[in-house]
Amino acid sequence: MRRDARSGVSATHGGPARAGTVSVGPVSFLDGVVLVDHHCHSVTTSELDRTAFEALLTEGPGPAPGTSAFDSTLGHSVRRWCSPVLELGPHAGPEEYIARRRELGVDEVTRRLLTAAGAGWLFVDHGFGADDLLAPAALGPAANARVAEVVRLESVAETVADAGTDAAGYAEALRTAVRARVGATGPGRLRVAACKSVLAYRHGLDIDPARPDDAEVARAAGPWLAERAATGAPLRDPVLLRHGVWTGIDTGLPLQLHTGFGDRDEDLHRADPALLVGLVRLVEPLGVPLMLLHCYPYHRQAAWLAQVFSCVHVDVGLAVSYVGARARQVLAEVLELAPYAKVLYSSNAFGLAELHMLGALRFRGALGALLEDACAHDELVPGDAARIAHMIGSDNAHRVYPVLGR
Amino acid sequence: MRRDARSGVSATHGGPARAGTVSVGPVSFLDGVVLVDHHCHSVTTSELDRTAFEALLTEGPGPAPGTSAFDSTLGHSVRRWCSPVLELGPHAGPEEYIARRRELGVDEVTRRLLTAAGAGWLFVDHGFGADDLLAPAALGPAANARVAEVVRLESVAETVADAGTDAAGYAEALRTAVRARVGATGPGRLRVAACKSVLAYRHGLDIDPARPDDAEVARAAGPWLAERAATGAPLRDPVLLRHGVWTGIDTGLPLQLHTGFGDRDEDLHRADPALLVGLVRLVEPLGVPLMLLHCYPYHRQAAWLAQVFSCVHVDVGLAVSYVGARARQVLAEVLELAPYAKVLYSSNAFGLAELHMLGALRFRGALGALLEDACAHDELVPGDAARIAHMIGSDNAHRVYPVLGR
Amino acid sequence: MRRDARSGVSATHGGPARAGTVSVGPVSFLDGVVLVDHHCHSVTTSELDRTAFEALLTEGPGPAPGTSAFDSTLGHSVRRWCSPVLELGPHAGPEEYIARRRELGVDEVTRRLLTAAGAGWLFVDHGFGADDLLAPAALGPAANARVAEVVRLESVAETVADAGTDAAGYAEALRTAVRARVGATGPGRLRVAACKSVLAYRHGLDIDPARPDDAEVARAAGPWLAERAATGAPLRDPVLLRHGVWTGIDTGLPLQLHTGFGDRDEDLHRADPALLVGLVRLVEPLGVPLMLLHCYPYHRQAAWLAQVFSCVHVDVGLAVSYVGARARQVLAEVLELAPYAKVLYSSNAFGLAELHMLGALRFRGALGALLEDACAHDELVPGDAARIAHMIGSDNAHRVYPVLGR
Repeated sequence: MRRDARSGVSATHGGPARAGTVSVGPVSFLDGVVLVDHHCHSVTTSELDRTAFEALLTEGPGPAPGTSAFDSTLGHSVRRWCSPVLELGPHAGPEEYIARRRELGVDEVTRRLLTAAGAGWLFVDHGFGADDLLAPAALGPAANARVAEVVRLESVAETVADAGTDAAGYAEALRTAVRARVGATGPGRLRVAACKSVLAYRHGLDIDPARPDDAEVARAAGPWLAERAATGAPLRDPVLLRHGVWTGIDTGLPLQLHTGFGDRDEDLHRADPALLVGLVRLVEPLGVPLMLLHCYPYHRQAAWLAQVFSCVHVDVGLAVSYVGARARQVLAEVLELAPYAKVLYSSNAFGLAELHMLGALRFRGALGALLEDACAHDELVPGDAARIAHMIGSDNAHRVYPVLGR
Repeated sequence: MRRDARSGVSATHGGPARAGTVSVGPVSFLDGVVLVDHHCHSVTTSELDRTAFEALLTEGPGPAPGTSAFDSTLGHSVRRWCSPVLELGPHAGPEEYIARRRELGVDEVTRRLLTAAGAGWLFVDHGFGADDLLAPAALGPAANARVAEVVRLESVAETVADAGTDAAGYAEALRTAVRARVGATGPGRLRVAACKSVLAYRHGLDIDPARPDDAEVARAAGPWLAERAATGAPLRDPVLLRHGVWTGIDTGLPLQLHTGFGDRDEDLHRADPALLVGLVRLVEPLGVPLMLLHCYPYHRQAAWLAQVFSCVHVDVGLAVSYVGARARQVLAEVLELAPYAKVLYSSNAFGLAELHMLGALRFRGALGALLEDACAHDELVPGDAARIAHMIGSDNAHRVYPVLGR
Repeated sequence: MRRDARSGVSATHGGPARAGTVSVGPVSFLDGVVLVDHHCHSVTTSELDRTAFEALLTEGPGPAPGTSAFDSTLGHSVRRWCSPVLELGPHAGPEEYIARRRELGVDEVTRRLLTAAGAGWLFVDHGFGADDLLAPAALGPAANARVAEVVRLESVAETVADAGTDAAGYAEALRTAVRARVGATGPGRLRVAACKSVLAYRHGLDIDPARPDDAEVARAAGPWLAERAATGAPLRDPVLLRHGVWTGIDTGLPLQLHTGFGDRDEDLHRADPALLVGLVRLVEPLGVPLMLLHCYPYHRQAAWLAQVFSCVHVDVGLAVSYVGARARQVLAEVLELAPYAKVLYSSNAFGLAELHMLGALRFRGALGALLEDACAHDELVPGDAARIAHMIGSDNAHRVYPVLGR
């Protein structure tokens, strides 16, 4: 282990490919764990000025007028923990940080921060806001990680619509398109880890969960296809959203569902994962894993679902980077009810490589501290603590996701 | 006080009948408190193999395939805290624990763990899954405690239906049956402490709270009685559920209501105790205590109800055993708003004597630590802390429940 | 700094006008911060006996029969922290406290406790339960603070109705009355800081947020005006409530909205600030600040709104005094997602000067401890911590409220 005296950051080695992993504090139960980040997005390829950087440092469109996104728990985390990775002292000021970021250049910044995150696998949803982002295949070399793809069902549906499908053929056309995406192989093609739905953004999780039949889909498709052709309207029809979700389930791959914390396109209270209980009951007999993403601030509810339904898994992605050192409390709240085999790691980072790095750093710090505390209070023995660290950081993903092999 | 050097468990004496009470850590404000467990179930009489044991170690039907229910906060609590009661070292492995459990035999295991829980009174709901369970009257000697009964209104209703009642007579037949259960006395009959409704399981708490009239009940009873005769359908009709609730209220006994954390038969978000506010407003003038059971993860909402309505009382039963050392935070969240006179203890243990023992152990540990911390920070004086410990562990129940005398 | 050896309370000086400010513990980042209490009520002018005092020590109508409101986190906070301000030892008993309160007399008690709160500005909602309360203008000298007024829209509406307005003229009459209240100046007139709606009490936040047109208002006004003339019915019609809210928005002043924790007139779950998202979306383009008051136990949801919408600001008033030392956790939960520039201080004290003092004391203690802890763990540097303390305690209010100047 190498320790940067200036920053108090330790760089540990989870294996030959994981050099440079950054963690909080001394040796932790997480130090040897090569994380699987089972849900993230790519990072910007632009050289960001301060305004553009701050716009990516919040789930809003940017800080309120007269305020700075650096004045937040996330902003201070960037200054404290990312600065040393850019060879600044910890707590560098915003202007200094942005200047150094531009000085190093976005490629180098991306490489440093992604490598510091220390994830061995990245499952990337590239179906949203992708114009400015690094291609997923290029993330792997930058992060020194392997990459698989997450297929965003609503994006596939919109592609199908834009290809000129008619209402009667829409249901089958989406099935064909999703099967093609999931099954595609070939040189340079990423393998697909999971399907994903953003039902929470497009409608809310308070929906009739039943699988619609093709006639119902055709009736709903007509108006939407016309509207999309005319105005580019995104998919928001509940019948078509349900058809998308069930098309994802039919692939047999784990289905990721956005729940809880996200941007202003959603009604937060309608993204409460507890609202998914009807869908969960229908999926449970099928053996298809449901992966509840983010969940915060409804993560205790999600943990209950993970306990009582075999198919449900949870993470606190996105929250884990935003809430700073409080990630420890948030994760502790999840582990009150969630079986340890049902909790996974994700960063849900989008746009900024800083969010990849902070997600991993806070997750390692939080889980490490919880396990150390449990050992210190004789609630756990170190051997079990180490095993739990590997379960949550990596092994559970390997059990659930076929793309990882087993 | 006798201390088991191997386990760090202290055995304290709350009185001649309470030998062997297990608590966490050194002398606590709770050490002398003889708990009233105002809501629990009985324990299995079967010799459990690992599969059967794990099935009772979760509110789901069992762990997900390929996982173990021991890999949870509750599972590690069993290994840490119950093992010494079975004369194993703390943190015994699952196989070792199950083998020792079978070696001692279920009667001895039950006796040891229930005695270690140190409750002086157990209020037992025996209206659910009772086939395999020890008769409530037999729990008393095993636990060295006194036992009273909780009458589950929906079970009485189903018994009334199965007795061949017709729709026109159903409303009165249920009233008669509940009155008979509540008033029954005689050799070997347990006294009744409370009525209980599982409206949250059967419908959800989002219900018109008004008392239905007998004509309305008769109209609703017809279809259900026919369906039950044909298929054994459980009571789920909202009018009949309301009639049951009001029949319980009419007895004048405290009415227990399942809210929050439970098994997969419920929609968790429809078990939010805040949804009961309409019923609470109707009951408040009647002076009948409403006892909100479990409440987690909506226990802050329940605590608000307990502050603003005289009739409302709360506990965090079930959660208190499942969440392990986090019981301290959960109870602290309750005590943010709930008056100390409105908080009670319950284990809501079902099936496993371990859940009785852990419920008591975590409750004592949590409340003891909170009170000690408050004294250490000069927020409370020890005399008040001791008084609060007695209130929450015992005195509040004595004030509310006639069966305990006053 | 002067320290009272008996109580451990330090009295610090935030400036010439702020002598006697009480804070918890040693020098804190908050010690020099002159708080803006952006939402409170006035205090009683009655000499309170124990029953009357306890009735103001809960959001219910009083403690449940056979219990004391002193047996609560708030009650013990009064005994611990307010007693020394009345020259009693800390933890004085309830009887001793009430006797001393009466001995000093309500004027002196008010002066001592309000001064100890150390707020430099009080924004007072005097539209509720005001009969027995000190006039807002008189609060200033008692508190050694400046005072501005919060205009409760529903109270203005009821005044307009009582003046004999007809249905056709009601919409415009309310607009005229609100404009008059907001613009009123003159000797002895308080300036208006904000409008406020108690939609959460009168209907719930689950409302169509659209601005109603005058015809719609006229149709709704007819029945209500008739009912009010006959029975004094309060304003509960959702169309008229929306008209009130939009009339407030049209003034351009910050609009305060009651959310979360309050008295039993509300359905707590219908006061979840997340339900306001539709209104927030309509207000966001207008640049009118929305101030979400109290928020607890939905403060994490409120913090999300504050992050993703420029117009949203939050506080945890009322909770901050009630939950005692747990204010630290509650505030920490807010700061997980809320930008530091969007969080404000309020006491939401009503009736008891103790609630003003405890609100300030707990807020200072909570924020101070969080900032100190962050510095101790090298998550923040002291310079930033001091800046954040000023932002949340004072500067954010100065940025948002025109009445404070900028």
